[in-house]
Order: sequence, then structure tokens, then C-alpha cells
Amino acid sequence: MDIKKMLVNDHVKPYLLNARYGIEKESNRVDLSGNLAKTDHPKSISLRDEHPYIQRDFSELQMEIITPVSNTLEELFNYLAAIHDVAYRSMGKNEMLWPLSMPPQLPEKEENIVIAKLKNVENVLYRQTLSDTYGRRKQMICGVHFNFEFGDELIRALFNAQSEIKDFHHFKTEIYLKATRNYIHYRWLVTYFYGASPSSEKNFFEEDSLNGPVRSIRNSKYGYTNSAGVEVSYSSIQNYLSDLSLMVKRGLLSKEKEFYSPVRLRGGQQVSDLAVHGINYIELRNIDLNPFETYGVSYEQAEFLHLFLIYLLWKDEGENCDEWVKMGDYYNDVVALEHPLEHTKFKKDAENMIDEMEHLVQILDLPISDTLFIHLREMLMDPSKTLAGRLYKESGKSSQCQVATSIAKENYKKSWDKPYQLTGFTDMELSTQILMFDAIQQGIQVEILDRQDQFLKLKLKDHVEYVKNGNMTSVDNYVSTLIMENKTVTKKILHQHAFRVPKGEEFQTIEQALRSYDFFSTKPFVVKPKTTNYGLGISIFKEGANEEDYHKAITLAFKEDNTILIEEFIKGTEYRFFVINDQVYAVLLRIPANVKGDGKHTIQELVNQKNNDSLRGSDHRTPLERIQLGELEKLMLKGQGYQIDSIPKKDEIIFLRENSNISTGGDSIDVTDQIPDDYKKIAVDAVAALGAKICGIDLIIEDTNVPATNKNAYGIIEANFNPSMYMHIYPYKGKSRRLTMHIIHYLFPELLQS
Amino acid sequence: MDIKKMLVNDHVKPYLLNARYGIEKESNRVDLSGNLAKTDHPKSISLRDEHPYIQRDFSELQMEIITPVSNTLEELFNYLAAIHDVAYRSMGKNEMLWPLSMPPQLPEKEENIVIAKLKNVENVLYRQTLSDTYGRRKQMICGVHFNFEFGDELIRALFNAQSEIKDFHHFKTEIYLKATRNYIHYRWLVTYFYGASPSSEKNFFEEDSLNGPVRSIRNSKYGYTNSAGVEVSYSSIQNYLSDLSLMVKRGLLSKEKEFYSPVRLRGGQQVSDLAVHGINYIELRNIDLNPFETYGVSYEQAEFLHLFLIYLLWKDEGENCDEWVKMGDYYNDVVALEHPLEHTKFKKDAENMIDEMEHLVQILDLPISDTLFIHLREMLMDPSKTLAGRLYKESGKSSQCQVATSIAKENYKKSWDKPYQLTGFTDMELSTQILMFDAIQQGIQVEILDRQDQFLKLKLKDHVEYVKNGNMTSVDNYVSTLIMENKTVTKKILHQHAFRVPKGEEFQTIEQALRSYDFFSTKPFVVKPKTTNYGLGISIFKEGANEEDYHKAITLAFKEDNTILIEEFIKGTEYRFFVINDQVYAVLLRIPANVKGDGKHTIQELVNQKNNDSLRGSDHRTPLERIQLGELEKLMLKGQGYQIDSIPKKDEIIFLRENSNISTGGDSIDVTDQIPDDYKKIAVDAVAALGAKICGIDLIIEDTNVPATNKNAYGIIEANFNPSMYMHIYPYKGKSRRLTMHIIHYLFPELLQS
Repeated sequence: MDIKKMLVNDHVKPYLLNARYGIEKESNRVDLSGNLAKTDHPKSISLRDEHPYIQRDFSELQMEIITPVSNTLEELFNYLAAIHDVAYRSMGKNEMLWPLSMPPQLPEKEENIVIAKLKNVENVLYRQTLSDTYGRRKQMICGVHFNFEFGDELIRALFNAQSEIKDFHHFKTEIYLKATRNYIHYRWLVTYFYGASPSSEKNFFEEDSLNGPVRSIRNSKYGYTNSAGVEVSYSSIQNYLSDLSLMVKRGLLSKEKEFYSPVRLRGGQQVSDLAVHGINYIELRNIDLNPFETYGVSYEQAEFLHLFLIYLLWKDEGENCDEWVKMGDYYNDVVALEHPLEHTKFKKDAENMIDEMEHLVQILDLPISDTLFIHLREMLMDPSKTLAGRLYKESGKSSQCQVATSIAKENYKKSWDKPYQLTGFTDMELSTQILMFDAIQQGIQVEILDRQDQFLKLKLKDHVEYVKNGNMTSVDNYVSTLIMENKTVTKKILHQHAFRVPKGEEFQTIEQALRSYDFFSTKPFVVKPKTTNYGLGISIFKEGANEEDYHKAITLAFKEDNTILIEEFIKGTEYRFFVINDQVYAVLLRIPANVKGDGKHTIQELVNQKNNDSLRGSDHRTPLERIQLGELEKLMLKGQGYQIDSIPKKDEIIFLRENSNISTGGDSIDVTDQIPDDYKKIAVDAVAALGAKICGIDLIIEDTNVPATNKNAYGIIEANFNPSMYMHIYPYKGKSRRLTMHIIHYLFPELLQS
Repeated sequence: MDIKKMLVNDHVKPYLLNARYGIEKESNRVDLSGNLAKTDHPKSISLRDEHPYIQRDFSELQMEIITPVSNTLEELFNYLAAIHDVAYRSMGKNEMLWPLSMPPQLPEKEENIVIAKLKNVENVLYRQTLSDTYGRRKQMICGVHFNFEFGDELIRALFNAQSEIKDFHHFKTEIYLKATRNYIHYRWLVTYFYGASPSSEKNFFEEDSLNGPVRSIRNSKYGYTNSAGVEVSYSSIQNYLSDLSLMVKRGLLSKEKEFYSPVRLRGGQQVSDLAVHGINYIELRNIDLNPFETYGVSYEQAEFLHLFLIYLLWKDEGENCDEWVKMGDYYNDVVALEHPLEHTKFKKDAENMIDEMEHLVQILDLPISDTLFIHLREMLMDPSKTLAGRLYKESGKSSQCQVATSIAKENYKKSWDKPYQLTGFTDMELSTQILMFDAIQQGIQVEILDRQDQFLKLKLKDHVEYVKNGNMTSVDNYVSTLIMENKTVTKKILHQHAFRVPKGEEFQTIEQALRSYDFFSTKPFVVKPKTTNYGLGISIFKEGANEEDYHKAITLAFKEDNTILIEEFIKGTEYRFFVINDQVYAVLLRIPANVKGDGKHTIQELVNQKNNDSLRGSDHRTPLERIQLGELEKLMLKGQGYQIDSIPKKDEIIFLRENSNISTGGDSIDVTDQIPDDYKKIAVDAVAALGAKICGIDLIIEDTNVPATNKNAYGIIEANFNPSMYMHIYPYKGKSRRLTMHIIHYLFPELLQS
């Protein structure tokens, strides 16, 4: 089997970089001083043992972050960042994640390291066994596991480019075995570049057996290794499996999964899957936490590992595979225990390999980022640029512990800076970001089906729900959204159900509209184009109108649309009621863009001050929008006798807009607790009349102290089938209402049952 | 109470013509020769006794058509026409409706007139009583009942314009009582203009007591009247009700509803409602069937009656109301029994009244059609222009029976001319028209919420369903339609459920797309803009493509959209599967616009011939579209070496289009029975995977004889949440599939249970 030839085959070429990735990353939870936390795993994270994204590892303090399997590195790192946001904000403001593989100072007594408080008894017992075998200190070492799968189309193309092996699964297994043997043999290169555990903190070693700093304690014999005598062959999958069970039989391992190889062969969820289907992917386990990356591993590292694996597939291996693999352990231990600032003993070999890799990239025409090889060569030339070197040098200025604590604090700050955003997905709509946050926290698998279209697939065990724009779901029926989309139909149905809606009529011509003057002349009424854009063409007559003004208003409205509406004007304050499944979860008052004078600053300055709030941004990616000072605002100021450099009196409120939309700088004020129940009942009943389940319905109320059953106490203006949620979650004033979580609990009621 | 003054009040004026209307119209069913039919009421009409639109009156042969309450005369007549269409087409092609009030020749033996076979025993017994009291012959007389209600806003405005009566319901009742008394007094005017029962047919009279033709047998003492001694006062609602119950107590009436007044006072469904709420509307019962109108009554008649009632409200009445009412019976009998061609005895009075009415129209500034008064005056001047006069004159040429039979045939033809249309609603989408037809037939109340938007409300007892565009309903969940709207998401979900969909990729730039050349070069593939309009910018490469053609195709597609798709091309024939609630109800093959040669005619002529089919029209208002001969078709002909004046050989098929859309003249061919079940299962399962309930899903199948489970046996192209239904109901070839009826049964399963 000539893999070199197969790799350059024309049919293989298009698929060379096809791959799937997954990251598992452990870190210890610490308090803000860098001491091991004393708390349990956060309660706000759904506490199922099988949480897909955030679990506990050996200890209750070890948080493991698990990305979903991703088709691109971009996707992988988006998820890694997002899950970190959820982890951080779930821990609360008193904790952070320790950025090093080597744990922070440990308790003097080993027993005080708390084993993970899992529900499954067997899992707890297994951890007890590990504790007995290796001691709890070693189990506190953290790292990154990089799961890697060659794309199915790549493996198929390679398979078709040869004829020696007839069985596809057998072929696939052989591919992975070669890559694995070479990876173990050459993994010292990874340790050189990315090893990052030079020193330990207090109480890690009972007696420190090291003579000073090294490249990677974790990857050395002092790290996380099985007892001597555990030897497994990678010559074939049969040998691998029978050796493994032999180890268990001999009592050298308690279970097969206790085998701490730098590469774990994976068939599926269980070791036994390997026997059935062969190898489906491999798990690289020798990656130290990268202290200089917010999420413990860099994009460039992942790109390197991918390329390294292709290179190792290409590169010839030694004749005797078992020997070849064993030599790798020796080389690696040498490099792991070198001083972080000294050149590696195998510098020459490393240089050759980098040259070969770069050559291969050229032959295969792979689109690898330009800087990768520059960085690798820099690190090779200057050990102080390797991760271990950098950490060691930094630590020299203070201590490793202080450096780690201050890095943790930086990461902590980043995660709390814009708590409404979900890093990795900030291009998506805010409500969708918040919903994704809540779903991840609840342990629901989130898949993005169409990113521009805000289309999500949510999965909890076998239960799948699709969600678009945060609240367009399966719980609403189709025609009910079509009803809400059609204002005339909405009004008709509400009217038939005896709710008060503004009375009105549609007109297609000026003449028709003029003929109806008598209907409206003496009442408060509004003239508007059927479809309104930002209030253009609307005239409001709060006390009726004379025929001339009526005519003018009609003409104005017809400039915007060929159908106009003349409607009764309902006086009062407009409230948005957010109804989910027959319950009001939030009521919001929206106030037009405004500033409050202090007797010192100009309107321009007051606007700038108000816009400084990090909740204000633009384009619906922040909970509030910045107040503009454009033509419309200036006109509005002029109407009140102001200019932008006028200085309003103390406590004077200056409005800059007529309309109260949040999108034009309005303030959102939660009034859920202030609105009487009878008005909430009106909202709930009206939404039910429309057949809707998730709905934002707008009521105009003149005086909330008057009973809702009074004649004309309220009027319903419109109902929205995709109402904004973030404005309730991050209101300008008042209590936050976590509507996204209510949506999730409505879609997945089983979450509340368990 | 000065009603004259109230009517000219400024606050009353805007509402003067506000009113609600309803028509009940009876006709006898006859065979195509004009003999009384021997069949039962049509089975296809839902046989509930309380069918809202089509019922039986006294006899099984008397079909009663009932419109819903309508706010305008336009709406009223639309419904009247539509329900007639349903009645006609439900009777089948061997029957028609007799257009005269007087029945066709009756059986010699009265017992052979069949009493309506109702389910409710009480209703049958009541008819037996009528048969005993009046004889069955008289019960066979038919007519029109015109239900009239003054608009609520009008009554309120009038109420506010006076101060004598303090109670609103009392006031309303007084208004109706005045109109009623005057109507009975002056109803001879209606009999003069619109009386239309001059002669009877064989076996109506046991002994003909008439001396020749009259204006209206039906409205005379020989018509449909209670026995002598039945006298009821209209002086107040209390007197009216107590007189009525006295008549029942004395045995002169079997039930209160047996009181055959020319005006029936209505409170609600039951007579007893009157005591509670007073009068809500009145039912004018003295209208003969208008033989010259397809639906038995004209718009102008209805307009006259409305205006007449306003006039009667305005006009002073006599001092003694009971006397006043009684005089009306006398006058009316005189006019009813006048010869149809003679002037009426009360011509002078009639002229005065018409002058007064016209004057009133001027005073009140009512928008009445110009021709009404011209026609009324013509009829007054020339009795042969009244309905009775016209019918009598026509009958002189042959016989009344022959005239009636030929009129019935005309109406019959109209109703069968375009059996896919629903008269009155032909501006609506065809599928909606057919759905409305089926709903009316099934006895479901149909209300149009938005005509342009094809938005219906369907109601069966307390069960309400909203339907837009014929199949957008409450049974589909919202997100499932959003999935189908997004082609990428649809494909992803189907792929995740292991259905075959064309593999492909989206590209935003030419460079990106070029980079993927290797992926596609050797396979069949399609390049297309993400959103396609009539196939613009699409290139199909059935055998792969060289790099130059690939580049050209990409550039072409990017001219139409800024996102393009390159997709695997799946070979085979495209079929549309129509799935409702996990069952395939129709499979359609669509063939591009084509003609079949006969060796004689040119392509142009063949197209004209094919377009002559009444099923072909334009703009989706007929089941098929006319074939065009535009630029695209000419280009397509040119490609085959033809021009529009070429003469194709016998049986040669000439295609005029590439695409198979019905909207560009394609043929629809039903193949439901030819498609094997395993492909139907694929369609059903795929629709279920999308969570949809009503869906048209397009499968490409290379060979339906190959099992669907074979690799690549099929590919799914797209799923539609608002699939066209009419093309399955009226296919060009093959069996009709009444999908609208399946939708109705799906929405209202209770219809199938009863």
C-alpha cells in the first residue's frame, strides 16, 4: 500500500483537508485569588452526568468542556468559546478557570480533594479506584484532548485509489493505525512546541523528584501515566484489543478506559465498538493546556495537529511497529524533561520534519495559513518562544502561580464583559445567542442549520426541536402566525372574540376615503398607509379633524401606499405583553429615546454619556441601541425649542423621538410586576383567541388602576409572532425576564420533570 | 317620536344605508324535461338537518338555499350564486331547479308528493301536520324570503337622536314594528312589480278557481295563507306574542312558526327570543321567485326592498294600526289577482310613492343606482314589463311550462360551464374556490376574512378553523413551514434522516466556486442561483464539465444572485407527491408545454386547438394555463428545427418549453395509481421528517420499477408547504383527486364520524 502515491491521486486531492474535530478540555475551578474553589459544580448547569458540553472530570472541581463534533476548525473554536462563556457565567462572579495543566496549590491532605459528586454510582466508584491507584493529586492534572477524524470522503477516495485491501472498514482502521504509530513515535515534537507544564504548585508532589523546570511534567513519566508493565501493541486492532483485555485481566488496569495512551483509538462511545466497526477516529491526549489562549488551545495548534497527522500518514514508519511505538515513549520523555529554555536534543530531526511537512503542503497544494511554518521555525530556533519557554520566562518575573492567576482574571473579564453575548456567535441575533446560551447550559445539543437565517436544531436525548429566530417553533401552528401577519384578519378575529380593537376601514382611493369623513370627523382617529415604514405618512387627530385636515392627511398617507387605513385612535400607554403558553412572562414599557438634563451638559453630551452604556450598540446585537442625533432627532428638538448644544435643566427629560421603538434608541422598562392581573388575563385570552402560543401582544391602556373589564379600558393594537426577547432580558430599567429559558422549558418540558 | 327628523340628523346620516341581509330561496328539483324529480335530496350534500346553506323545505324535492348574513348586497349575491353552484353540481347532471314559484306539474295523487326525509322526527311530524291542514300541493309553492336588519350603528344613531324612548331594545322594536306595519299595508306595490306567479301547472288546483292569469297566485288568497280567523296584532311586541299564542291555543296554528305572515318578526332563531330581546330583524316573505334571474331574485329587487323599508320608516302610518295592517291584506289581494297585463287599480298611489321615494333619496343623499327609478316607472307605465307581465307574455308563445323548462336549462348550463369555478368568488385562487365549494357542500360555514389574501374562517358548530390559500392551516406547525421555506435547511434535515438529496454547496464568490471544481468536474451537476426565477441562470451538466464551461456557468449564475448553489444533478423523472397527514393522496407528473402533430395542422394551429379547452386559461384561475408562443417557445422550436408554421408529423410530440410548470402551459397527469407504494412511503416518511402535515414533495425517480430502497433510486428535490391543489383536482389526464375535500376532512374529522 503506497500511501504517498494515494495521497497525490487526483480523485483524493479535493478531499485532503476533509476532517471532523472535537475538543475536550479540562480545567480546575479556582477563586479569584487562584485558590482551588470550595464550591460544588454550578447548579445552574443542568446536572445530568451526561451533559453534552460541561461535565466534571475526576474531581468536583475539574470542569470539562466538550465541543460537539465539528466539520471545520472555525466551527470547533466557535463552540469552544461559547461553551466557555456558559461555563464562566454559570460559575458566577466568584470563580474562574485555572489556565494551567498543573493544578493550583492542592490541599495538604489528599482526601480533601473532592471526587466528582456524580449521580451514577459506578462512575463514582471508578474514580475511587483511580484515587487508590494513582493518588488524587495526579488526577488533578488537566489537559486538552483533540479528537480527530479523517473525512469520510477522503477515506473513501483513498480506499478507491488502492486495491490491496478489499474491506473498507479494515482499510480505514489501517490508515488510523499508521497515523497513530507514527504519532506516538514522533509526538516529542508536539511536546517540544506545545508542552506547557514546566513546574508544579504546592502539594502536587509529595517529594519533588524533579531537578528544576522542564517542558512538560504532564507528558513526562511524572505526569499522568499508567503503571509500568502496561504495554499494548498497535500492530493491528486485534492485537490492540487483546492486549488491552489482558492488562485488565492481570489487574494492571481496572477498566479498558483507564489506558492512558497519548492516542486513544475510538470506534464509538465504548471501547468494544472498536471490535465491531474498527477505528472511526482517534483521540490525541498529549496536549497541555495552552496558558496563553483564552480557551486553552489555539487555532494554529489545531491546524498543526491536522497537518501533522496527514504528514504522519505520508511518512514511512519503522519495520517493527511495537518497537517503533516504544521508541516514541523514550524520545518523548527526553524532550518532556528538557529545560524549557534549552534546545531540544532532536533539533536536527525536528528541522528535517518541518522541512518535509512544508514540502508536503506544496506537493499537495494545501491551503495552510502562511504563518504556521514561520512560528514553528521560530520556536525551533528559540526555545523561549515555545509555550513552556514563555511560561517559564513570565513566571520568573513573579511566580507561575501569580502569572496563572492574572491570566485567569483576564479570561474571566472577557467572559463577563458583554454578558448578553455568546462568544463565537456574536454575528447572530441577540435573542438567538441568549437562547443558545441557555440551551447549552441546560445540556441541550445545539446545531446551527443556517447561520444567516438563525435556524437552530435543539436536541435532548431523542427529542428534537427546530427553532428559528429564537422563538419561531413547533409549538405554534402555521395559520395562527399568518393571522398575526395580517393586521386586518387579526383585528377581525379579536373583534369577533369581543376584544376591543381600533375600529377602522381600508380605502383604495382618496374619493372613497373622503366619503367616510362623517364617520370619523368628531372622534380621535389616525390616518395611515396600510404598510407603514418608520411612521411615514401617519397623521393622528386626537380630537377629530376638520374636512381640510382630513383631506390633507389622506393625501399624505396615499403617498406611501395605495391602500390606507383610517382607524379610531385609542388613547393611553402602549405595553408589550409577552405570552408563552397562556401565561404572561413579561410586560414592557417602551419610552422614546430621551436624555435627562443635569443643568451642566449639552444634549449632545448627555446623549454621548447615555450611549456609553455597554448595553447600547447597533443593529440588534446589543440589548439597546445607541441614540442617534440625525435629522429626525434634530427636528424633534427644534419643535421643543432646543438644539443639540442646548443645556437642559436638571432632571428635565428631553425626548429625541416620537416613536418608542428600541431600535431608534428607546428605553425598555420592565413593568411585569406592576401590571394588574386582569390586564394580563386580557393579553392571555387575546393570544389564545388567535390560536398563538408564543406571542408579543401590544395593549394600549389609559389607566392600569381602572379594571380591565371597564368599557374602553384598553385597546389591542397588534400581535407579533416573532416578538423581540432580548429587550425583556436586558431591559434599560427593571427586572430581567429570562424569556429564552422559558421557551426552552416550554419546548423541553422534560427538563423541569427531572 | 319624529322619525322624519331623526333620519335627517347629521349623526344618523353616515349610517343610513348600514344594514345586514340574508336570503332564503326555495325551488323544486326537476329532471331535464321539467318534470318533478324522483330522487332524494343529493347525498353529496352533507345531510345534516341543520345544514347552514342547503336544506329541504316541506318536500324532499324542495331545495332551500340559505345565504349567510351579509353586510353588503354584493356579498349576499356572491354567496347566493356560490351556493347555487354547489346545489346544482351536487344534484348531478340529470337535474335542475324549477325557476317558478308555482310548482311544475304535480302528481295526480297528493300522497305522491314526498315529505322531506329529515332525521329529526319532530320536523317530519310538523310537515305531516302541514300536509293535513293545507294539503301538500300548496306546500310545493316556492319563494324568496328576504331577511333584513337595520345596521346596529344606524339604530344607535337614531336612538341617540330622540329622547322619548329610554330603552334601546324597546326603541329598536318600535322601529321595526313601524316598518313592518307599513310594509304589510303597502306590500301590494311589491306584488305589482315583482309578483311572478300568473298561472299554475297541472294538478296544482283540484279545481281551478281562478278566471285566467293573475299577477301572483302565491301572494293571493289562493296561495300560501293561514286559515281564516288567524289574526295577529302588530301594535306592540306584547300584543303580537300574546295573539300568536292565542292562535296556537285555539288550534288555528299548530305552532307559532306556522304563522304565514308576509313579514315575520325575528328576535333570533326561536319565536320566544322576541320576548327576551325584542325584534332584531324582519323576514320579508312575500317575494315570488324571479324567473328571469339565475338565482331567483335580482340585485335591483334587493336594493328596492332596502330603500322601500327606509321609506316606510319615514312614511306616516294610519292611526289604528291593526286596521292599517288589515287594509294591506285587502289591497294586496286586489293587486295579486289583477291580470298581469292590466294596469293596477292603485296606479296613482304607486306613482306618488315612487315620487316620494325618489325625493327621499335626494334629501338623504343616498347612493342608489340610477336605473332603479327608471325601471320602476317603466313597470308602472307598462304592466307587460313587470315580472308577471313578462312571464305571461313569454308563455303565450309556447307554454309557461316550456318557458320555465328552457330557463332552467340555461341556468343549468351556466352552473356546469366551468365546474371548477365557484361563481361569486372567481377572483379568488382556484384552490380556494374549490375548497369553499367543498366546505359549503359539507355544511361548513365559510366566512372570508381577507379576500385578496385568500383568508377563510371555517366553522362547524363550535369548531373553528382558519385557512389561508386553501391549505395553510392549524394542522401544520410553524417551524416546519420555515424549514421548507429554507432549501438548505430542508436538505440538511432530510439528509440527517437518511433520505437522498442532491449533494451540493453554497458559494458567495466566483473564486470560492472555482476552487471546488475538482469536487464536481466528473459528475452530473447543476449550477444555479440560490433563489431562481423561472430557471434563469441555471446550467445543467449531465456528464460533468470542463473547467471553462464550469467557469462560464458560475459567472452566469452569479448574474442572478449573490449566492449560488452547485449541486449534484439527479437523473430521472420528477413527480409531485401530495401528502396529507401521513398519507399520499395524489401523485402528479408534469410535462412541459407540448402539442401532438396530426400531419395537417401547423404548430400555431395545434396550440390554438389545445388552448380551446375550457380548462385552460390564465393567471391560475383555471386548472391549466394556455400555451404561449412567445420568444422562449419560438427559441425552443428553433432548437428543434421548427417554426410556428411548421406542420409536425402525425403523433409527433413537439415540446414548446424545457420546464414542466403548469403555469407555463405544461400538462398535468395524475399517476397516483401507477406509483408503487415504496415510493409513496419515501414521500410520507420524508414529509414526517420535516414535521409537516400538508406538503407537496418532489421526488426524482429514474425508474419506478426499481425498488425505492435501491441505492440512488430516488432523490428529493424540494418540499412545498403551500402546494397547488387544483392541478390534482383537474388534471389534464388521469383521475381527479379531490384534495380540498381531504383537507376539509382532516380539519373537521367529525364530518366522517357522523
